[in-house]
Amino acid sequence: MSAIFEILDKDAGGRIGKLRTPHGIVETPTVMPVINPNIQLISPKEMKSFGAEILITNSYIIYRKEELRTVALEKGLHGLLGFDGPIMTDSGSFQLSVYGSVEVTNEEILGFQQKIGSDIIVPLDIPTPPDVHFRRAEEELAVTAERLEAARKFIQGEQLLAGPVQGSTYPELREKAASRLRDLNFEVYPLGAVVPLMEAYRYAELVDVIAASKKGLSPTSPVHLFGAGHPMMFALAVSLGCDLFDSAAYALYAKDGRYITANGTYHLEKLNYLPCSCPVCSKYTADELRKAKNKEELLGKHNLYATFAEIRLIKQSIKDGKLLELVEQRCRAHPKLLDGLKRLYTHSAWLEQFDPATKGTYFYCGPESSFRPEVLRFEKRLDRFSLEGSAIIRTAPVKGEKDYDRVLTFKAPFGSFPAEMEEVYPFNAEVPKFPDYETLSTALSNTLKLMELNPGAEFTFICEKEFEHPLIEEIGKKAKLVYRAAWKKE
Amino acid sequence: MSAIFEILDKDAGGRIGKLRTPHGIVETPTVMPVINPNIQLISPKEMKSFGAEILITNSYIIYRKEELRTVALEKGLHGLLGFDGPIMTDSGSFQLSVYGSVEVTNEEILGFQQKIGSDIIVPLDIPTPPDVHFRRAEEELAVTAERLEAARKFIQGEQLLAGPVQGSTYPELREKAASRLRDLNFEVYPLGAVVPLMEAYRYAELVDVIAASKKGLSPTSPVHLFGAGHPMMFALAVSLGCDLFDSAAYALYAKDGRYITANGTYHLEKLNYLPCSCPVCSKYTADELRKAKNKEELLGKHNLYATFAEIRLIKQSIKDGKLLELVEQRCRAHPKLLDGLKRLYTHSAWLEQFDPATKGTYFYCGPESSFRPEVLRFEKRLDRFSLEGSAIIRTAPVKGEKDYDRVLTFKAPFGSFPAEMEEVYPFNAEVPKFPDYETLSTALSNTLKLMELNPGAEFTFICEKEFEHPLIEEIGKKAKLVYRAAWKKE
Repeated sequence: MSAIFEILDKDAGGRIGKLRTPHGIVETPTVMPVINPNIQLISPKEMKSFGAEILITNSYIIYRKEELRTVALEKGLHGLLGFDGPIMTDSGSFQLSVYGSVEVTNEEILGFQQKIGSDIIVPLDIPTPPDVHFRRAEEELAVTAERLEAARKFIQGEQLLAGPVQGSTYPELREKAASRLRDLNFEVYPLGAVVPLMEAYRYAELVDVIAASKKGLSPTSPVHLFGAGHPMMFALAVSLGCDLFDSAAYALYAKDGRYITANGTYHLEKLNYLPCSCPVCSKYTADELRKAKNKEELLGKHNLYATFAEIRLIKQSIKDGKLLELVEQRCRAHPKLLDGLKRLYTHSAWLEQFDPATKGTYFYCGPESSFRPEVLRFEKRLDRFSLEGSAIIRTAPVKGEKDYDRVLTFKAPFGSFPAEMEEVYPFNAEVPKFPDYETLSTALSNTLKLMELNPGAEFTFICEKEFEHPLIEEIGKKAKLVYRAAWKKE
Repeated sequence: MSAIFEILDKDAGGRIGKLRTPHGIVETPTVMPVINPNIQLISPKEMKSFGAEILITNSYIIYRKEELRTVALEKGLHGLLGFDGPIMTDSGSFQLSVYGSVEVTNEEILGFQQKIGSDIIVPLDIPTPPDVHFRRAEEELAVTAERLEAARKFIQGEQLLAGPVQGSTYPELREKAASRLRDLNFEVYPLGAVVPLMEAYRYAELVDVIAASKKGLSPTSPVHLFGAGHPMMFALAVSLGCDLFDSAAYALYAKDGRYITANGTYHLEKLNYLPCSCPVCSKYTADELRKAKNKEELLGKHNLYATFAEIRLIKQSIKDGKLLELVEQRCRAHPKLLDGLKRLYTHSAWLEQFDPATKGTYFYCGPESSFRPEVLRFEKRLDRFSLEGSAIIRTAPVKGEKDYDRVLTFKAPFGSFPAEMEEVYPFNAEVPKFPDYETLSTALSNTLKLMELNPGAEFTFICEKEFEHPLIEEIGKKAKLVYRAAWKKE
């Protein structure tokens, strides 16, 4: 497995990886532009200029149309599309989900993908939609499992085989399905049938589906969030460990006059300005773009530029250890994404194991920031601080603190830690002047825990008047509580 | 005045305007690239291709260097720079602030700017830095006032005259200075000596300086935040009513290998990827850019593309009534910007008068969102709801609610309002599933006020179990309090 996917950098659940395919190495996370074998708004060979390293197309469409099939069988998939880099092929599962049936068997479409030289082959799994009865989800999962087992036996060799994880909106089914597939050693794991969740902005449930699937899979396997092509949610999905996306959106949205940005979608008809720096938007005004003869193509190009810029930003953020800052900022694009963010952090204990021990300076972005893995890690390790004698806790130096055996700094969301560690990660955090209520809650609660863990120490807590919180009273029971203004007068 | 500056669109304190100059109309908000008359990384005539509508240069540098002065006096400023659009000129105040003295008088530099045909002339004011003693700030302000009065008498005609507002970090001085200048009818009002605040990330104080100055000026006057060139804080400044910025940063940062984005600055040396979609970043990799012979020029171009894309995004956000959403998202780039955001909303009562009565759907971005002008406006108008008889308040429909005389919807941060207004602005707000503590505080407090304003009504409040807040007890004193789970059982 490690020969096929190598992880180079990590941040939270996100990672930068190298995926080896018969047609070359792909750096992840990345998005695969979807190529419609029938109509091409932007030609496959142009795709590299936008930053595409791998494409995806539909083998079922090629299989069903004789003129395409003939060329594909003669010249291969890469000859058909005129692209020499890696190409993944879908199987007809999408058509199955839309039309209820397809005119091909699992074995036939696998064999066809193999013959035409697909780099990543997808079996004909059953894409169970969200919200179906549990029994249906289970039954369809059993069919999918059979087909995937057959596929694994069938496809052995250089070509990569994808093992889609299904299970509808049942996290327990997703996790079970994933852990079964794990043993079959697929090279890539798509998470299937999530498009309806994204279309309905059900990001909290999407997060649960991704997290459950990831928990079942090996953390070293590459994961493809099948059907996810809007850059608005890439950062969130990457932070959970998704490595591959696919975008039909760049073309479908362009056809529909929709203008993609990492913060959402505009309708070109309603744009007065082009709020983007890409070559299209730097050259044309909104009005010129609307009137351009090749409007759809230009819009498709803008959509691709915006999409790949977000991929580069995500990768840079992973390198810098700032992925969660990016996620928290992106999730401000829509309150439903914020619901997704909150759900993400319900999985912080799981994320914490992947998160680097030190990384870029923690930047507070909002109340959610106090639930990040590094804050949880600090809480888990509170027992490492062994305190005895007199200890003073304050937000900033106060007179006479040198008379105490220990001086601790109080900084939300972490809590209290030895003052000499102020410049050390994660305590060198950049935070606002005063914490919000939830952030203060975390810091006070961690401080209380620290006091309980050190019953031998005698605590003095210098409180700021801005700290209005019921836990202050609890602190007062375990420590001498003095407000900063009163302290000066002593 | 209205002939010179016309406001076309408004959102919060921000506006889209048209500024008439002798060399054409400028749409604001915009940024003026600073042209160094001696060295040009990017030529003035190229500037239009990035989106620049107006440039700024330093008349004192031209005045002091004979070869430049001769050309400027012969061919005019526009001939010297080879630019036929509007050009603003600085006076030497910057040099005064750096070197403590300049070798020119106010009258001389005003006359020179007039002669060479500057579109916006700046007098030789005294740029008092932050944190000086109040007396010094006052004394220097008196000198500035004299010079500005002299300038106003001296410059009459087509050319625009700028009246810089000084006053150091004393909001009361800034406001007083501004209201005096207001009577002298300058065409443009720069806010001076704010660069040290921005360099030190003192955004909260910057907000106070801008707000105080704006309160003293006529709301119909264009305001220039002198020295502000980083797109990271444009949205915040625009939301307070700044119309013009100037960027030396695009070139200075490029010289220093710094890469500007609307979310902060990177060092090119430390970039693994170019996280931007501009023509430079879509064409080159980080490594190629580092090794390019014209690295500085390319970096300068990227900086300009990124800067003007942000201007377009800000203008689009004003058109869409979504400026504060953008501000709140941008302020997540650094916790000190969040401090600035919080300070912004301490001025919400003042902002509210400029904010349109209806605009784009309110999107919650964080606890700060509950202090937006539209939330304050709702609170101020609570007395418009006259309630009698039985009234039920709930977050979503409950059984038997039709038996009540009035049905009210509870939605944070607003509070409680007639259910039939759910789809009306601002109640059609997009908010997360559950509010944060501060947002819940606002909504509960407004609900209590509504109850107090309607002592004749009999309230029932259906409470969600997630609402943990001390005000719930207060609500319980004024209403029948029932938890949703208990309600079903009745």
